[in-house]
Amino acid sequence: MTGNSQNGNGIGHQRKKVLVAGATGAVGSLVAELVDKHPELELAGITARDTEDAKSPIGKKLFEIYPEHRVDCEFQKISDLDLSAIDAAVIAYPAGPAARLATELLDIGLKVVDSCGAFRFQSVETYEEWYGEQHDAPHLNSRAIYGLPELHREQLREADLVGNPGCYPTASVLALAPLAARNLIDDVVIDAKSGVSGAGKRGENAPPFIGTFDNMRPYGIPGHKHEPEIREQLRFLGYEGSLSFVPHLIPIDQGELVSCYVKPTRKVGPDELTTMYHDAYAAEPFVELSSELPTAREVQETNICRIHPLMDKAQERIIVFATIDNLWKGGASQAMQNLNLVLGLPEHSGIDSAVALSSGATMPLDRAPVSA
Amino acid sequence: MTGNSQNGNGIGHQRKKVLVAGATGAVGSLVAELVDKHPELELAGITARDTEDAKSPIGKKLFEIYPEHRVDCEFQKISDLDLSAIDAAVIAYPAGPAARLATELLDIGLKVVDSCGAFRFQSVETYEEWYGEQHDAPHLNSRAIYGLPELHREQLREADLVGNPGCYPTASVLALAPLAARNLIDDVVIDAKSGVSGAGKRGENAPPFIGTFDNMRPYGIPGHKHEPEIREQLRFLGYEGSLSFVPHLIPIDQGELVSCYVKPTRKVGPDELTTMYHDAYAAEPFVELSSELPTAREVQETNICRIHPLMDKAQERIIVFATIDNLWKGGASQAMQNLNLVLGLPEHSGIDSAVALSSGATMPLDRAPVSA
Amino acid sequence: MTGNSQNGNGIGHQRKKVLVAGATGAVGSLVAELVDKHPELELAGITARDTEDAKSPIGKKLFEIYPEHRVDCEFQKISDLDLSAIDAAVIAYPAGPAARLATELLDIGLKVVDSCGAFRFQSVETYEEWYGEQHDAPHLNSRAIYGLPELHREQLREADLVGNPGCYPTASVLALAPLAARNLIDDVVIDAKSGVSGAGKRGENAPPFIGTFDNMRPYGIPGHKHEPEIREQLRFLGYEGSLSFVPHLIPIDQGELVSCYVKPTRKVGPDELTTMYHDAYAAEPFVELSSELPTAREVQETNICRIHPLMDKAQERIIVFATIDNLWKGGASQAMQNLNLVLGLPEHSGIDSAVALSSGATMPLDRAPVSA
Amino acid sequence: MTGNSQNGNGIGHQRKKVLVAGATGAVGSLVAELVDKHPELELAGITARDTEDAKSPIGKKLFEIYPEHRVDCEFQKISDLDLSAIDAAVIAYPAGPAARLATELLDIGLKVVDSCGAFRFQSVETYEEWYGEQHDAPHLNSRAIYGLPELHREQLREADLVGNPGCYPTASVLALAPLAARNLIDDVVIDAKSGVSGAGKRGENAPPFIGTFDNMRPYGIPGHKHEPEIREQLRFLGYEGSLSFVPHLIPIDQGELVSCYVKPTRKVGPDELTTMYHDAYAAEPFVELSSELPTAREVQETNICRIHPLMDKAQERIIVFATIDNLWKGGASQAMQNLNLVLGLPEHSGIDSAVALSSGATMPLDRAPVSA
Repeated sequence: MTGNSQNGNGIGHQRKKVLVAGATGAVGSLVAELVDKHPELELAGITARDTEDAKSPIGKKLFEIYPEHRVDCEFQKISDLDLSAIDAAVIAYPAGPAARLATELLDIGLKVVDSCGAFRFQSVETYEEWYGEQHDAPHLNSRAIYGLPELHREQLREADLVGNPGCYPTASVLALAPLAARNLIDDVVIDAKSGVSGAGKRGENAPPFIGTFDNMRPYGIPGHKHEPEIREQLRFLGYEGSLSFVPHLIPIDQGELVSCYVKPTRKVGPDELTTMYHDAYAAEPFVELSSELPTAREVQETNICRIHPLMDKAQERIIVFATIDNLWKGGASQAMQNLNLVLGLPEHSGIDSAVALSSGATMPLDRAPVSA
Repeated sequence: MTGNSQNGNGIGHQRKKVLVAGATGAVGSLVAELVDKHPELELAGITARDTEDAKSPIGKKLFEIYPEHRVDCEFQKISDLDLSAIDAAVIAYPAGPAARLATELLDIGLKVVDSCGAFRFQSVETYEEWYGEQHDAPHLNSRAIYGLPELHREQLREADLVGNPGCYPTASVLALAPLAARNLIDDVVIDAKSGVSGAGKRGENAPPFIGTFDNMRPYGIPGHKHEPEIREQLRFLGYEGSLSFVPHLIPIDQGELVSCYVKPTRKVGPDELTTMYHDAYAAEPFVELSSELPTAREVQETNICRIHPLMDKAQERIIVFATIDNLWKGGASQAMQNLNLVLGLPEHSGIDSAVALSSGATMPLDRAPVSA
Repeated sequence: MTGNSQNGNGIGHQRKKVLVAGATGAVGSLVAELVDKHPELELAGITARDTEDAKSPIGKKLFEIYPEHRVDCEFQKISDLDLSAIDAAVIAYPAGPAARLATELLDIGLKVVDSCGAFRFQSVETYEEWYGEQHDAPHLNSRAIYGLPELHREQLREADLVGNPGCYPTASVLALAPLAARNLIDDVVIDAKSGVSGAGKRGENAPPFIGTFDNMRPYGIPGHKHEPEIREQLRFLGYEGSLSFVPHLIPIDQGELVSCYVKPTRKVGPDELTTMYHDAYAAEPFVELSSELPTAREVQETNICRIHPLMDKAQERIIVFATIDNLWKGGASQAMQNLNLVLGLPEHSGIDSAVALSSGATMPLDRAPVSA
Repeated sequence: MTGNSQNGNGIGHQRKKVLVAGATGAVGSLVAELVDKHPELELAGITARDTEDAKSPIGKKLFEIYPEHRVDCEFQKISDLDLSAIDAAVIAYPAGPAARLATELLDIGLKVVDSCGAFRFQSVETYEEWYGEQHDAPHLNSRAIYGLPELHREQLREADLVGNPGCYPTASVLALAPLAARNLIDDVVIDAKSGVSGAGKRGENAPPFIGTFDNMRPYGIPGHKHEPEIREQLRFLGYEGSLSFVPHLIPIDQGELVSCYVKPTRKVGPDELTTMYHDAYAAEPFVELSSELPTAREVQETNICRIHPLMDKAQERIIVFATIDNLWKGGASQAMQNLNLVLGLPEHSGIDSAVALSSGATMPLDRAPVSA
């Protein structure tokens, strides 16, 4: 609705209309901005869940709440929207309300990308065990596709319900997939480090400045909700062995780095390691191998996951680092990637600034001999 | 020489005189401040290595270079000092000059605590392989004791040459010692996170603000110099298996957290785990078990190492977190602890603010049931 | 009660007993630590205001809530304390409860240092206008002395009720006093910058990490409560002209810098400027002139205020920078300085690490030719 | 050359070719990225000054040096470029080389936007006095237009040489222009706060992490080079009175806030103040009035300057806050705005994400009643 809408799209071309349900949080508000700037989408509405609250944003514009998201769209009650005119929705509600809204929207034919945890698991039981609450739409579970395009792209093209992945699983699974798919890993340790926006707490429970700044800590263990997600995707690739996952809170706003330690099941040489990762990701628009040890900042505000595998000095373990922006590839821009897939749009549409460089997707791999 | 020197120590009591050779770096300048405030020591002199340089601090006082170290002692050339009147020295020079100065000082009877890497290894070959340079005082190597009091206290009391440990080995070995000593560990992974002062680069190579702030990264691998130190101390405790050590740079000034992942060699229950750590450290003045997941800040500017062992949810791995201040327990205050030991002073003298709380060393353990 | 209490103080010497009422906040908890380490004081008790709350700290020890304050003293209800055995109290409650408790404690003969705003003003009306609430102990107001020792030392020695100053007034008034006392200032602008602990909000209203980190902003204007305090102290020194005071929030934990801009009422040369500040502060144990533009860190965790006056290039304005630690000289250690004064102890007792360097109070001034 | 080049521009449409001379610094590299993504420009080349140095970037691609700038363009020697095929250049060299290159490029007909200080002043003498060096192209000085479009737009449309403003002058002059143009200001104090990228030091002199983090300080006075720029532009608007300008270094990467304090020359009411700013900036695409006290982050990575004027409580002074991103509106994106002007392109082309919101330039003013 901002500047981009002035770019004519020619006669006969119709932008798809997208609802963002729950644009008050970090991921939802960023999705709203990405939809708003998307050349082939129209932001048809943004909603908030708590409509009766004195602090309710209903009637306010997005930029009034988040000045950094320059989006001139007003929060509405979902009951005031004409849902029949809408093509797709990204839901960023908590699990219960999200599941109920997904049911409603699917019934009237919308495509849905859901960012809560409820549609990320093969079985409802896994969800209920790790999240400690009942699933509010168990009948939809088998219909949902896990929204990691690098693993499930073809199914996503046909899907009408996508469970957008957690940030840690996105980085961890992309880091290990090339090895897991070849049955080369054992004894997996994932030591994850995230900026504060990845720690997931909002409002009154949001981490305060004092105590977070100039500090660091492990958190959320044992039993972090992203662990079963990582386990399930690695199982899909063939790995069922041991896995320890430990997240740490780092005093930056956004950015995520996972350091994965695995025992190879057979001897793997540095060249073979390079080749495996090259082969796995050469055609992927949003995965790059880096020639240096990667840093969190170099993928900030992009949909890119940068990966760097290496062998430790004693050749005892393969170590794979992966870095993403937890709010982008680990959240909002991956939701957009999935939205593009379910709507039949080019996968990188609206997130092209993050597409691999012009000389082609293979280029980052060519310039990235894996260090050894 | 500051305020403390005004506290009379009674007739007949003579403060020991201490030289700090190399007080221009972060560790050396902090040692100088700790010596200066120490109730039983006198700061007999501070030196700098580059005496000809235009930027030489010779003739300046410590607080003029480091306003935060309020020490009124002037940098001198070592040749202008009467070394025969001095009892002990902490050397914070690079390895070559440090080794040569250690030789000279030991010859005239001083006790020496050295903070470079040259006196930390059982064999000169290990040093030369990992540091990539020749050892400048190989004849002293067998005389040096590794300055981790929790492992080598009795030998340190008799020593005249101490190799003060690296920061990562201090935290890592303290984290794993109770398990390693019982042959309970295998497949060790140490994922270490340090503030910028632990990254070890000085002057023109010091990490710049831009590129370090709001960022994080692994660094220094494969082949970080602290890895062989950790390996050797774990070997001393009986572990010779696989080990991967990966340090990461975190955008804080000082503070260090190591996350250690080990496979237990047999089933260990949570209570047994608690008891082992309790038994190991109940009498240690500077090691505490924490009842919560520890944070870097809570030991900032103390000589304390706080440790928290737990079992991961699937009982596959023991995870041990340890946190220290890399400049204190990982550097200057541990040097002071060693200085106290070699001089026959109470181990906590001059660093009492960091001693365990008054109700006794066992108290922190009592209040710290290990989470499971 | 910690290590220090083991230092015998000789026969016949009795430590004064001090209560810290309200040790749950940043200032109160630090006061408790300073009292606990003080060689001539005994921490007789710490209290918290909300004793019925589920989150009440009653029964917990200070270090259990603030691991960085290694104080082994338990929170009690004030009604469980034998107040008659106590010599003095520092109150760190909000204004209403503080005023009522001060009344009670003064009645039974304790000396009181109060850290809320209620006892900082000459008239009750000023307090009520700027704080927007009724004064709960107006009868005590004329008895209270403003606790800036550099201005009111002799009165403080005789006082039994001290209004401990706000952080911004401490730095601002010390910065301008030498000029104000000589009627040399006009058109005063004070642009103040503070770390987050100086912004004064606690609990659920404490600034969150996201939105504070990597950001800065003016706040609290027009009408910040510290403005009338600065005005009143400058009026005491003779200045009644215009004054603008604007605080800014800077993303650091603690530290405060005020940049004061004044029009001189007559021509003042650089040498005269230097001499005036030298004369004003040569005998002050906790004020230093710095030879360089000062930084916030160089006085961190000290009771020192560092000041640097200069003339702008066009000689149009005198600019005075002053930096303090808002939690120390701007809060807890200044309360301790006042406590020493009312109890007849040496002014620097228990905060000696922050006393000017050993060669005497004039030294920092000698080494600090004011730049011009 | 990246994704954008895939957007067809239709038959007959020719993108203008732009050279970025000096793309190794923070501003130059960002200009290169903005040109590269610009829908109507083509990045024709990037150069570096030190071509013989071992660290020379010649032959490397921009993203290899700055991974965050995803630009697939290779550094070349300027002598290897066909300058006759190029339409315009942005120069980000130091003053001497910049002046010589500007001479050469203007001679062969290119439009030039220069980011050094040499073309920002009406007289060569002002430059030489404040920069302390000889001007290398004094014959060009009268040809250069000061690149603040809000003041000099019409002249910029006709210009072939633009002196792109400094970051502090951009924010300060925009903050004060509506008042200065009406002769309403006197006794100007500008207290400026900038992130580290605005402090201007590069390479070995770049601010280190330790000493900058968790700290703040005034710097660069008396005599900061941006002061005469501010004076000259205010003089252009009619103000010749006193002015003090003091920059402070704040520990964030990028972002700038100026707090301007002025005595009004006559009584100005809050409504009149609002109206003046509204009238001044209603038609400006990149200036917004904010309804709240502004923060540095809300304009990060935009070309927007947000302004908030208010009266202090005692009505003694008008205080105007302005915030920009020092690397964008204070550098690279303003260079792009100027490039658009000299090339006859829409002023917001290529920087539209930063254009005021869709409901029109007046909207931000309507929603922003100035607080009083």
